Amino acid sequence: MSISDSKVLSTGPLAEEEARWTKLVKTTYQDPNGVTRTWESAERRTRPKDADIDGVGIVAILDKPTGKEIILQKQYRPPIDMITIEVPAGLIDAGETAEQAAVRELKEETGYVGVVTETSPIMYNDPGFCNTNLRMIHVSIDMSLPENQNPQPELEENEFIEVFTVPLANLWDECKKLEAEGCAIDARIGTFAEGILIAQRLKL
Amino acid sequence: MSISDSKVLSTGPLAEEEARWTKLVKTTYQDPNGVTRTWESAERRTRPKDADIDGVGIVAILDKPTGKEIILQKQYRPPIDMITIEVPAGLIDAGETAEQAAVRELKEETGYVGVVTETSPIMYNDPGFCNTNLRMIHVSIDMSLPENQNPQPELEENEFIEVFTVPLANLWDECKKLEAEGCAIDARIGTFAEGILIAQRLKL
Repeated sequence: MSISDSKVLSTGPLAEEEARWTKLVKTTYQDPNGVTRTWESAERRTRPKDADIDGVGIVAILDKPTGKEIILQKQYRPPIDMITIEVPAGLIDAGETAEQAAVRELKEETGYVGVVTETSPIMYNDPGFCNTNLRMIHVSIDMSLPENQNPQPELEENEFIEVFTVPLANLWDECKKLEAEGCAIDARIGTFAEGILIAQRLKL
Repeated sequence: MSISDSKVLSTGPLAEEEARWTKLVKTTYQDPNGVTRTWESAERRTRPKDADIDGVGIVAILDKPTGKEIILQKQYRPPIDMITIEVPAGLIDAGETAEQAAVRELKEETGYVGVVTETSPIMYNDPGFCNTNLRMIHVSIDMSLPENQNPQPELEENEFIEVFTVPLANLWDECKKLEAEGCAIDARIGTFAEGILIAQRLKL
């Protein structure tokens, strides 16, 4: 069993009556000149009523003797029929804070137990197209703790995730290499790598 | 006239027959165990047939005597009813390369004329939810050129964009400040800033 055994069997339009997780929205708005216009967009149906975000992305950094490494995941994503490279991530449960969701998802998806060190602003994934958003939560993992010696993910029966780590300092080159191997790069990790690259090149 | 005069008048469900720019898709796929499952996602209807991306984001860096600055934009986005902070960006036209789209959009949206210096892997904005994607194109702007002395955007009549620049080295703090002022941070610029921050803190 490997995530590369996943494949699309068929695709087709999804009728509104049938949709359980997604929806299309028509917004009528007034532009700065007072002109009335419309805009089409997509939304998740799953955001809890009291939440201001759909989910969290987790920047989990391991302090290894050879240097800092970031935890990444390979996962088959049906919307693009590819294996993606993403940070650990997940949707918020009702009543949960972003930080609680991050610690829970990191444990479930990777087995590691960590402590939150930073919470990002709310970030919008593609705000001309959809309202989906997240906070990036930085989690520090103490590798000397007994529970982090042999981390075991607790995946749901429809989750298939491969966890791996890459050196932070080479993240841009790793993304290019993974793309050359046929993987799809998530924009959140791709532009994060781009920021590291620019900081290194321009000595920021 | 100011982009902050924009506002939502009403929102409602968008019927599939009426949608011109977006659509919902149902994918039937086989998981690694051979189990047949379905997944709901959203797509743009505008990607040209011969294109592998929807659009481009532009990392345009100005080399000023006081330090490197990045060009950002404020724009009202109806899907979230907020003013966003984004890099200059745009959709690909049919027959156009990513690099051509970047130079064209940068000129249209900011007035600056630049030269492409780097093309990113294809990045997927939210691949568990939608198939939208882009390449980030780095563009170098020669500030000594006559055409870059007094750059004038050429916006379409339904585009309302405010262009500004911020120091690259402080991008994370600038994002936090802009969020505190009520702006929404696009994930592509937010995680780019996060990469710079991490590279600085960890001395990558």
